Amino acid sequence: MFTLLRRCEGRARRGVYETPHGAVQTPVFMNVGTQAAIKGGLAADDLERIGTQVELSNTYHLHVRPGDQLIKEMGGLHRFMSWSGPILTDSGGFQVFSLADLRRITEEGVSFHSHVDGAKIFMGPEESMRIQANLGSDIAMAFDECVKIPSPYEYFRRSCERTTRWLQRCKAALTSYNEESDAVNPGQMLWGINQGGVYHDLRIAHMQQIAELDLPGYAIGGLAVGETHQEMYDTIEAVEAYMPEGKPRYLMGVGTPGNIIEAVWRGVDFFDCVMPSRNGRHGHLFTWDGVINLNNRRYDRDDRPIDPACDCPVCRRYSKAYIRHLLKAQEPLALRLQVMHNLYFYNHLMEQIRAELDAGTFAAFRAAYSERLSRRI
Amino acid sequence: MFTLLRRCEGRARRGVYETPHGAVQTPVFMNVGTQAAIKGGLAADDLERIGTQVELSNTYHLHVRPGDQLIKEMGGLHRFMSWSGPILTDSGGFQVFSLADLRRITEEGVSFHSHVDGAKIFMGPEESMRIQANLGSDIAMAFDECVKIPSPYEYFRRSCERTTRWLQRCKAALTSYNEESDAVNPGQMLWGINQGGVYHDLRIAHMQQIAELDLPGYAIGGLAVGETHQEMYDTIEAVEAYMPEGKPRYLMGVGTPGNIIEAVWRGVDFFDCVMPSRNGRHGHLFTWDGVINLNNRRYDRDDRPIDPACDCPVCRRYSKAYIRHLLKAQEPLALRLQVMHNLYFYNHLMEQIRAELDAGTFAAFRAAYSERLSRRI
Repeated sequence: MFTLLRRCEGRARRGVYETPHGAVQTPVFMNVGTQAAIKGGLAADDLERIGTQVELSNTYHLHVRPGDQLIKEMGGLHRFMSWSGPILTDSGGFQVFSLADLRRITEEGVSFHSHVDGAKIFMGPEESMRIQANLGSDIAMAFDECVKIPSPYEYFRRSCERTTRWLQRCKAALTSYNEESDAVNPGQMLWGINQGGVYHDLRIAHMQQIAELDLPGYAIGGLAVGETHQEMYDTIEAVEAYMPEGKPRYLMGVGTPGNIIEAVWRGVDFFDCVMPSRNGRHGHLFTWDGVINLNNRRYDRDDRPIDPACDCPVCRRYSKAYIRHLLKAQEPLALRLQVMHNLYFYNHLMEQIRAELDAGTFAAFRAAYSERLSRRI
Repeated sequence: MFTLLRRCEGRARRGVYETPHGAVQTPVFMNVGTQAAIKGGLAADDLERIGTQVELSNTYHLHVRPGDQLIKEMGGLHRFMSWSGPILTDSGGFQVFSLADLRRITEEGVSFHSHVDGAKIFMGPEESMRIQANLGSDIAMAFDECVKIPSPYEYFRRSCERTTRWLQRCKAALTSYNEESDAVNPGQMLWGINQGGVYHDLRIAHMQQIAELDLPGYAIGGLAVGETHQEMYDTIEAVEAYMPEGKPRYLMGVGTPGNIIEAVWRGVDFFDCVMPSRNGRHGHLFTWDGVINLNNRRYDRDDRPIDPACDCPVCRRYSKAYIRHLLKAQEPLALRLQVMHNLYFYNHLMEQIRAELDAGTFAAFRAAYSERLSRRI
């Protein structure tokens, strides 16, 4: 399903990934709509306006509310939220290990309590695949254990082995669910997740194991959880050489514009992060000169757009002074306009990266923008 | 500026009102954007999509934040919020008497403390006009005292007399401000406000006094504050006969779809109310069959739009099941979609009322819908 269009400068790549809901040009940033909506009040018609290629929703959140069975009855997540483009669902693993309480991990899976109503839930590979099959996303992520950094080497080693066994069960389960006569999206694809913290030998060994399963895509998980940027880059470099070249690579939960540029340089194709929407809601806005903070009084009477170089629906019409007023007055419209700008910025950044890759100018682009875009101005 | 196009059934009228920012077809419902934004996350471009004719903003709120002087420096409220259609600003009187603390009323005006930061503020007729001139709205409302119902007859009588004296000062002040070389909107018009509670003789006497000032429009204020619907209708009927026929009539803060139909029948042209946005945010949604409550579990799996008969951007694309999920999950998008539907419904209701008036079928429309639209189903 993945076509590697071109090997580029550094280890960077241009590609295209076919899904049951259309093709994705890579490198790509996926826009996070945890509960089937972008936080800040953006609907599917807005995603179309800001250049979204892939929407990402959350298995755990949609399982506890409104329930994946309900969404299946409504025709699946695409129809439920009225988004006809590609959707990736994460496995729920990250939320189980970060949000939910009182968990117990066994070979079978994880027992925990819902953060919404305290109900006891069990989730293992089969349950995660069942939920994602009910949602009918195009890309289902494997159910894995997300181990915090730092943790002991020996814990990581044993966890990676279990995650490999869980991945085999995920593959068997999804293959079977896709064959069901009432499958929501029978073309749903499973991507594996590489773990191992910042222990390069564990990362490599685990990658080699899961590559044998010949899945349509592979993610690097468990990063951006407290390690330094340099540790993250080093880990990507170590493991990337062992990732199948003909499959897309997804760096989960990353990151700043600079992180993304650096990871593209190191061979990554897919990204997601809550940063543009979360930071946007607090007035931290991305521009081609760096990050501005709209809480700063200096923007009180600034009647220019957030970024004069930006062509987004917000910058084409509204001023910093107006949006700052909405932010101070706690108007929900402030969230919407700020998130809309930031997501457009990320989507447009990826478009620019693809253009630079196509033109053979990505090294110069990286030199000019990798630091610049993440600095606070 | 007002052209009475046609006298219709009952006391109803069809008209058109010219403002410096375009013509308004009446009867009309004005969409309330208290702090220069519709609560629920709607921006000026959304207002265009939902058929808004007049945007209404709040003098008191914009004075305390971000400040009317700032908005003047930004080119006035139209430019600040990027809305090129007509704007009406209320006088701040209602908020001074309902929101602000520790007020003291004298002949000069009212002293009170800001509900945002406690700062001491004085507002009288000249101050209210100064603020509204700085905002540059098309229609400025007179500064009046809003007396609660019930209050003693004698208090109402003396208050009406003062409100008349205040109105004379408002007229003198705005005339002078419009002549200033840096006036934001030199064509800004002052509308007077009739008071007197539910005492018909006071209403009539006050209306006769303020009609002598020959202002371009007149409002009925101080209703929808606790009296019964019948008392409100009776008061409108009593005072309407004394309102200049060639001037628009505005019933402030009203109301349900049924209230609006009944007031149109009794000769009212302009309306505003927070009900569609406020109720919308809580899941109470207007349809042509009555009001539905999206909190009701029966809509869990309802994949139809809020109102199959509605052509709004929300009903054309999203289901009740999806919006209910967003509401339960406390996603800001729920507010936006619900408010967008409700405001479209009100704007479209007025369009329908105008069409019925034009066709001479308003009496039948009133009989069919006056009760129906406000019932809970």
